[in-house]
Amino acid sequence: VSRMRAGGVAGEDASAARVQDAVDEARLNAAVAALARFGGRDDGGVTRETLTPIDLAARRYLIDHARSLGCDVAIDACGNLFFRRAGQADLPPVLTGSHIDTQPVGGKLDGAYGVVAGLEVIHALNDAGVETRRPIEVVAWTNEEGARFAPGAMGSSAFVEPARLATYRESRDAEGIVFGAALDAALAASADLNRRALRSPVEACIELHIEQGPVLEAAGVPLGVVTAIQSVRWFTVALTGTAAHAGTTPMEVRSDAMHAAVSLAHRLYAFAAGAAQRGLRLTLGRWRVAPNSINTIPGKVDFTIDVRCVDESVLDEFERALRTSIADVDGGWAGAIELEKTFSRATTPFPAPMLEVIERGCARAAAAAGAPPPLQVTSGAFHDAMYLADLCPTAMIFVPSRAGISHNPAEYTDPHELYLGAQALAYAVTELANR
Amino acid sequence: VSRMRAGGVAGEDASAARVQDAVDEARLNAAVAALARFGGRDDGGVTRETLTPIDLAARRYLIDHARSLGCDVAIDACGNLFFRRAGQADLPPVLTGSHIDTQPVGGKLDGAYGVVAGLEVIHALNDAGVETRRPIEVVAWTNEEGARFAPGAMGSSAFVEPARLATYRESRDAEGIVFGAALDAALAASADLNRRALRSPVEACIELHIEQGPVLEAAGVPLGVVTAIQSVRWFTVALTGTAAHAGTTPMEVRSDAMHAAVSLAHRLYAFAAGAAQRGLRLTLGRWRVAPNSINTIPGKVDFTIDVRCVDESVLDEFERALRTSIADVDGGWAGAIELEKTFSRATTPFPAPMLEVIERGCARAAAAAGAPPPLQVTSGAFHDAMYLADLCPTAMIFVPSRAGISHNPAEYTDPHELYLGAQALAYAVTELANR
Repeated sequence: VSRMRAGGVAGEDASAARVQDAVDEARLNAAVAALARFGGRDDGGVTRETLTPIDLAARRYLIDHARSLGCDVAIDACGNLFFRRAGQADLPPVLTGSHIDTQPVGGKLDGAYGVVAGLEVIHALNDAGVETRRPIEVVAWTNEEGARFAPGAMGSSAFVEPARLATYRESRDAEGIVFGAALDAALAASADLNRRALRSPVEACIELHIEQGPVLEAAGVPLGVVTAIQSVRWFTVALTGTAAHAGTTPMEVRSDAMHAAVSLAHRLYAFAAGAAQRGLRLTLGRWRVAPNSINTIPGKVDFTIDVRCVDESVLDEFERALRTSIADVDGGWAGAIELEKTFSRATTPFPAPMLEVIERGCARAAAAAGAPPPLQVTSGAFHDAMYLADLCPTAMIFVPSRAGISHNPAEYTDPHELYLGAQALAYAVTELANR
Repeated sequence: VSRMRAGGVAGEDASAARVQDAVDEARLNAAVAALARFGGRDDGGVTRETLTPIDLAARRYLIDHARSLGCDVAIDACGNLFFRRAGQADLPPVLTGSHIDTQPVGGKLDGAYGVVAGLEVIHALNDAGVETRRPIEVVAWTNEEGARFAPGAMGSSAFVEPARLATYRESRDAEGIVFGAALDAALAASADLNRRALRSPVEACIELHIEQGPVLEAAGVPLGVVTAIQSVRWFTVALTGTAAHAGTTPMEVRSDAMHAAVSLAHRLYAFAAGAAQRGLRLTLGRWRVAPNSINTIPGKVDFTIDVRCVDESVLDEFERALRTSIADVDGGWAGAIELEKTFSRATTPFPAPMLEVIERGCARAAAAAGAPPPLQVTSGAFHDAMYLADLCPTAMIFVPSRAGISHNPAEYTDPHELYLGAQALAYAVTELANR
């Protein structure tokens, strides 16, 4: 019999509601703090790059914790950890979780929160005495950040598309260690775990994560239903002019790569200002200037373009404007401009039935806390869920990030909001596991 | 009795003409090549940074060479070398010369040509059997390039204003060696030389140098009478916004330091385009972007401004436009912009009587070679002559730089043009030394 609480919503799942109500705010936040001690910094941040000794220690801590909750633990060929609470039937599991690796200097929550909250859901299932039809698994994906080994999201993308792993194994960190070697060492230290096949069947996947942006905070809303992950396209623009003496070279004979780069960048920012209302986000983040000397005309400049939008047609428009702008600037000087598209990923929409489950979980948790109902938001950042969406019905829940700050020791979410996020997750996972 | 040659000019000095005619093209070019062997590179360039073992070896070679020409050699407290051909009277000397240190990767001519040509003038004086009323000294100034120890032109500026030396002695190279220590070692190895006081009297100074710009070559003229060294002002603009995630941060809440920097730079380039006809030269040469990551909004950007013009009023106008542009851009975003003026040097005009002497020497050398008459040009680069102009009547002669290239192994001037430059120098130095 479910305890009906104020704010119970129409059509709610009684078991799911019981599990949601069994989530423990103090226990959840203690568990966040406990994991943050692995790689914890004096400034409040966390340094826990993937497959480092501190990451391996944190993994072992989670394994022990999950076993204490009655979970079986498995690991796959990419080092992803699966903490499994058995179901009544041996069906493909409902998966939740995120990653526990951090940026070189990160916060306590990015990734870690989703894993810890998943284990709290298992604790709540146990406390509520709820058995589910399907197994529930909490996953900790390997190397989401891509800080030590590029690219990011190795674990989730290799799980979904195992052919990627061979390439990933060759990726080298700053000290020359290949990912394959670090991975094999981690696997050798995990001989006590079950082995899980890559791309093994998954019924559905939910990732709970901090927003890493300012939208929920600005709206004063504790829970976000993520409808999609934005499309992103990356480019590098390389301008080659002629380095020459700043004093002796008249303006009319210069081939100044920075002058051309500024003309181009100015046009791109102008386009972005016009398209911001339609959700376009433009970042010219990395610049390299040579010879980069105060009294030498820049001979070479390259800069990166990161452009995102949920609406692919706006990105298509941007890309046309980019090519036109390059042609215009290129026609006006003696140098050369090269454009390279280095990455693109289409918008990842999450399916409506998944959004409905999450909406129910979020709405019930918010109502019980007297908080505003959940907001539909899009994710500007990549997440492991982006890859899982290629394998199974997937969705995400966001909680606010104070001042939108992430990848930073100052990363912070109100503990009560962390609790509401775990409650929403508990509801959604339980409902899905009973299908 | 002077040998009058075709193209002899009205009012010419008979002794000066004889010395000019005694300059030896083959000998001069062999001497350029001989000095270039000290630090010579396979790519045709020269690496001879100040007070390195290779620079000290080159100095010793010049000392021996000058002594073979009958010169006394002196050194001052900043390591400047003076090769002295005695005059009939013990009066302040006429000084010529330049520097022999190079950029980390430089050419054979920047600086070295002026020193070698000065010694060729002494050779020509000897061959012509001309005694002058005043002594003639060839100088090799220490550390003009400023590549190993900052700032540049240490030797000439300390000679003119000895109080600078104490600060210079603290300047540290990339390996942590202070200039004072390198200098003391060089002085200890020069115990056989006379000592010269800093700021000892000089009658007049002429520096012969490659143009390091494209003007003479474009005009097809082998000799330039330098009327002035451009005024220069250096600034650093530092923009501080907020680093944030490229994907999660909507355009309207960004404080993007690169966006602001591009807006500002775009305005500055537009101003420069309008003022180019009045001789303004604008270079935004050094850029630093933080965190300089493809998917992070730049939180901090700084860039340098090098702006030059012979006309100070144009620079004043630029500086007003700069401050107005900063105020405009600063008003349109949430970040902050700081402007620092890091260096300024007013235009150095060379006095008309000096220009007349040089004009005579250049005109006679050009006429004898059937070349176009000299062109009046301005120097866009700094030179030791800029500081000497504060002490005594000073002027400069330029020869062309192929494609305007300097600070590069590809630096090149036609050997015949090098010869004409040395001829012009011989004339001017002799005429001045007989006053």
